Amino acid sequence: MGDMEGNKSSQAYPMKGGDGASSYTNNSSYQKSLAEVVMSLIDEAVAEKLDVLSFPREHPFRIADLGCSIGPNTFTAVQNIINSVQLKFQATLKTTSTPEFQVFFNDHTSNDFNTLFKTLHSYKHYYAAGVPGSFYDRLFPRSSLHVVYSSFALHWLSKVPVEVMDKGSLAWNKGRVHYGGAEKEVVVAYRQQYERDMCGFLNARAEEVVCGGLVVVLVPGRPNGVTHSKCIGNVLFEVLGCCLSDMAKEGKIDEQKVDYLNIPVYYASPKELEDIVNQNGYFTIDRMEGLPRIVEPETKHAARRLALGIRVGVEAVFKGHLEDETIDELFESYSKKLEQVPSLYSSGGASIMYAVFRRNDK
Amino acid sequence: MGDMEGNKSSQAYPMKGGDGASSYTNNSSYQKSLAEVVMSLIDEAVAEKLDVLSFPREHPFRIADLGCSIGPNTFTAVQNIINSVQLKFQATLKTTSTPEFQVFFNDHTSNDFNTLFKTLHSYKHYYAAGVPGSFYDRLFPRSSLHVVYSSFALHWLSKVPVEVMDKGSLAWNKGRVHYGGAEKEVVVAYRQQYERDMCGFLNARAEEVVCGGLVVVLVPGRPNGVTHSKCIGNVLFEVLGCCLSDMAKEGKIDEQKVDYLNIPVYYASPKELEDIVNQNGYFTIDRMEGLPRIVEPETKHAARRLALGIRVGVEAVFKGHLEDETIDELFESYSKKLEQVPSLYSSGGASIMYAVFRRNDK
Repeated sequence: MGDMEGNKSSQAYPMKGGDGASSYTNNSSYQKSLAEVVMSLIDEAVAEKLDVLSFPREHPFRIADLGCSIGPNTFTAVQNIINSVQLKFQATLKTTSTPEFQVFFNDHTSNDFNTLFKTLHSYKHYYAAGVPGSFYDRLFPRSSLHVVYSSFALHWLSKVPVEVMDKGSLAWNKGRVHYGGAEKEVVVAYRQQYERDMCGFLNARAEEVVCGGLVVVLVPGRPNGVTHSKCIGNVLFEVLGCCLSDMAKEGKIDEQKVDYLNIPVYYASPKELEDIVNQNGYFTIDRMEGLPRIVEPETKHAARRLALGIRVGVEAVFKGHLEDETIDELFESYSKKLEQVPSLYSSGGASIMYAVFRRNDK
Repeated sequence: MGDMEGNKSSQAYPMKGGDGASSYTNNSSYQKSLAEVVMSLIDEAVAEKLDVLSFPREHPFRIADLGCSIGPNTFTAVQNIINSVQLKFQATLKTTSTPEFQVFFNDHTSNDFNTLFKTLHSYKHYYAAGVPGSFYDRLFPRSSLHVVYSSFALHWLSKVPVEVMDKGSLAWNKGRVHYGGAEKEVVVAYRQQYERDMCGFLNARAEEVVCGGLVVVLVPGRPNGVTHSKCIGNVLFEVLGCCLSDMAKEGKIDEQKVDYLNIPVYYASPKELEDIVNQNGYFTIDRMEGLPRIVEPETKHAARRLALGIRVGVEAVFKGHLEDETIDELFESYSKKLEQVPSLYSSGGASIMYAVFRRNDK
């Protein structure tokens, strides 16, 4: 076995830990309601696509949540997957006896695993483990996982594409924090990084997932045919970039700093993901679709909640570059901007991609 | 599968985290030098007793360190076990290809897993996972582990025996913090708790360890034939209890508090452990011996280091009962006492028990 170099070259931007007002735990309700929608889809995927006869009941059934953050959504999700798998075993084998379950909660090393472990329910019906590291690399032994789940994580690139930080490159992303509205070269640099990362993800999972095992992905994306600049995720980051530029113009932030601040997020379309999976060849796409977008109401409350949601996600990217007070002021002005122009978030194309891949026979 | 109730009724006293002067990381050198001695023993146990032919090379080889604390000793220990296992595979199968390794680092939920994960070497040759929970309960799926290692952890009871905190019981441990020098009933209560805990440990491991798999235990104990009151561990706690009583007499601590402060540690003899393992019946004792005691020199430095070592271990027991300043003062006077009377720690019987159990065929 070669060196497992872990996060050597990747950057980790953990969700904000703890349980304060701007923590992930208290701002993940959007993911939760969506997860409820998704659960019936997963139930369907397990019922229709998981061939439990090929998994001996005497062996543990292993599930991983990749990019699990600190809960509580991950606990709900894995419990629902377990329920679905148990039902499938019972229906197929006409027995109430099912395998033992082992669940691996994965996220970057900088994730707050202490909080994750403390909030794990003691009366759970599975054996739990935490696995630190980037899911763009190998994390598990060969053929050791049956279901892999990843929710709201795969839009995070392993790192900012190097070209966009390179002053000498055509893809240098001067004055912006993201590729929405940027030069074509910037968009290409982001897309190529996404392709490299997804290949890393699929190659690693191809080794780890047993034949017939499922990879279930839920990720914010861009509907087919919608341009990047019309995608709500990109619009939201563009507005954030404008707020940052305004502060730079007011002399509150060094303008050069803005040039090197880039958010490593890519919103792929179902078509893009489909092409990558097909080209990779290790998995069959069982399902790939855009879920209906949950439209935010044009209220002050919604604008504030959305701004906070973005903050929870990207704050770690800004830390180390900007002072805490500057970040507070930035998100204060960002929140106000969204309140004033609610059409920024209530219209435009965005979708959640839901995909199920099945590991082909080896 | 029934409810896995985790630590429901057990108390967790984690080693002190972080990297401050009194942290575990900076005060575990004694365990380290000992670990080096033990490594050659483990190498021998693996070479002589591990039947690698019964473990298919295509399947992951799984190792758990139970009560691993936060490193770095656990990393050295598991890497050495892996090296031994690789050598055994290579020697037996005449091939350089060995299985993939997965290592589970276990400790109480209150252990600082964030620090553990951050100090994990990126270039390690195994897949790592953290497992929170008490090793006196089930932690892993059935037949999923090949080697279990536990160093300096199994002398910690799952909880203080209830009788010693019960004013109405003959085993009420008034005015003491441990059973050394206490009434016979107190000693019996501690021993019975140890027996219950070890049974819990062995029953859980019997489920989790594959047939032919090894459990390697390193634990401070008491040589056969040495009375509790002569065992250095007990003497050290008795001195600590005296320091506490002195502070109570000086009015610095409520005397009643001392009555309810008990350290949940039991120093068993090889004979006691042997009897429990034989009665349990799931494991064969491949090896059981006392390692030579490393005698501390009678210097101020040694006394201070020893006092700090004891503090790292038991501080968590005192937290919540005593103010931080009181704990500081207690260990200051404890350290002085050991400096003044070095014979307290430089003589007396104590030993490290080293044991290897092999899982019998089911």
